[in-house]
Amino acid sequence: MMEVVFLGTAGSFPTRDRNLVATLVICGNKRFLVDCSEGVQRQILRSGRGLRNLCRILISHAHLDHFLGLAGLIFTLDTTNSVEMIEVFGNVEVQDAVSKLLDIFPRKSNLVIKQVTIDAGIVYEDEGLKCSTFECSHTVKCHGFIFEERGGRRFLKDKARELGVPEGPLRRQLVEGKSVDLPNGSCVTPDMVLSAPEPGAKLAYVSDSAFSEILVENCRNADVLICEATFLNRDRSLAARFGHLTAKEAALLAKEANVGRLVINHISSRYREKEIVNEVTSVFSNSGLANDFDLIRLTGRP
Amino acid sequence: MMEVVFLGTAGSFPTRDRNLVATLVICGNKRFLVDCSEGVQRQILRSGRGLRNLCRILISHAHLDHFLGLAGLIFTLDTTNSVEMIEVFGNVEVQDAVSKLLDIFPRKSNLVIKQVTIDAGIVYEDEGLKCSTFECSHTVKCHGFIFEERGGRRFLKDKARELGVPEGPLRRQLVEGKSVDLPNGSCVTPDMVLSAPEPGAKLAYVSDSAFSEILVENCRNADVLICEATFLNRDRSLAARFGHLTAKEAALLAKEANVGRLVINHISSRYREKEIVNEVTSVFSNSGLANDFDLIRLTGRP
Repeated sequence: MMEVVFLGTAGSFPTRDRNLVATLVICGNKRFLVDCSEGVQRQILRSGRGLRNLCRILISHAHLDHFLGLAGLIFTLDTTNSVEMIEVFGNVEVQDAVSKLLDIFPRKSNLVIKQVTIDAGIVYEDEGLKCSTFECSHTVKCHGFIFEERGGRRFLKDKARELGVPEGPLRRQLVEGKSVDLPNGSCVTPDMVLSAPEPGAKLAYVSDSAFSEILVENCRNADVLICEATFLNRDRSLAARFGHLTAKEAALLAKEANVGRLVINHISSRYREKEIVNEVTSVFSNSGLANDFDLIRLTGRP
Repeated sequence: MMEVVFLGTAGSFPTRDRNLVATLVICGNKRFLVDCSEGVQRQILRSGRGLRNLCRILISHAHLDHFLGLAGLIFTLDTTNSVEMIEVFGNVEVQDAVSKLLDIFPRKSNLVIKQVTIDAGIVYEDEGLKCSTFECSHTVKCHGFIFEERGGRRFLKDKARELGVPEGPLRRQLVEGKSVDLPNGSCVTPDMVLSAPEPGAKLAYVSDSAFSEILVENCRNADVLICEATFLNRDRSLAARFGHLTAKEAALLAKEANVGRLVINHISSRYREKEIVNEVTSVFSNSGLANDFDLIRLTGRP
């Protein structure tokens, strides 16, 4: 299961109610901070999530509203010894900006900061999760991110209880694919207590971008698509000029990519929120706007 | 009259309830932002004060929690054309850090940023106000600030009404020191409707600092002293090591300098607030802690 916590949902400028964009993605005991806006360290505290284990930061592009908060966050993590190592993932322009930002304040030597330059492809992978990146079409080099849990077979607790499998090591062996003999003499095989293979959850994050087929390909069949939409359709020429999506285009992307749910962020204060909602829902019904501190839980679709 | 709006009151690290230190000082139509922490642009919006006319920024020292917000603030002021020129006042170390910070993001050419290097002495002066600076004793070069309104004679509305002086140009002439003839034939002189000379309000801002006589001299007779107190007396050796005041020392400073009221900011989350309040009030009764968005109005003491 994945969890998403919105730490900021405003594009370009903060408002009274919205901090600049930053999103926490939690997969098991792994935490990823996607974009790292000004004020993000305080937003994390306000969300009740704390700074523990926050050691992977993905930055979509080198525009100030997406990375300034890295300085304060690293200062705090370093000074309070909250983590030993941080990985900052971002394209070559991001890494240049991050290096300049880190150069303005001294650090203790304890915290290791590993700057990982990314291009389209895999960013992170372990036995349970894959995170990859793809190119957006913005005024500067910009990347979106895909989080995919590995699919697997779910342990069917009810079945196990029915068959009399006690909690503890016997259940673990079944999950690991081994048959077990119960105290009552009967034999239980994994197939008797595991579901058929099920897909893992897929989360797509589209950062600042004009519409492109690359977005559609990468977001295909995502359970949730978090997508910017900085303009309305009536301002589509402005959107095109500044390399942004309109609300309508975001909804068309969700539809073409066959995602389960669309959540709009990077919201501009130039519009009434109701207008943005109307424009996306008229094209793709399962959609809405993210608000700061919203929480989404993702499980794979059957 | 001066107004002070606290935009952030936490030292070093933000908390759920406190942003990092930044203070808005308003003297008539002049606005000064004293320290410019991460998140300050949003705190200004949340305070309801807006960004208009925000063209003088004073930065006490080059520690990250006191200046990082300058980047986001300038980005917004520049992009939204809110002001044409900004003056950033700070010592030589501040200016070095500010230059590096401004170098990480491109700007439109519209906004002129004037970096004014300060040392002890006058920072700003006009017919109604003087702002000067003095050295604090911190681990890096650090400055505090004094705001002093010019004293003057107050217009006594009740007296004017009693004498039958109508609102409008005649009252203005009296304020300017000219006698006037009323429609009823009587003559009114300035002395008849102006108070005796009164001192203007004085505000003292002590940034990160250990105790020193320089602080006492500069804060003398201030109506309000805004002062850091990062530690309690029981941790005075830590305070000394990191160049900070204890709550007790801040209160002793207020007492020795004969200020009217002491307001503690740069508050550390390591203590319960009640403990800090108890320590300052036991030495100097008219004192307390600043909270984010608190408003103080200052008028000169008789």
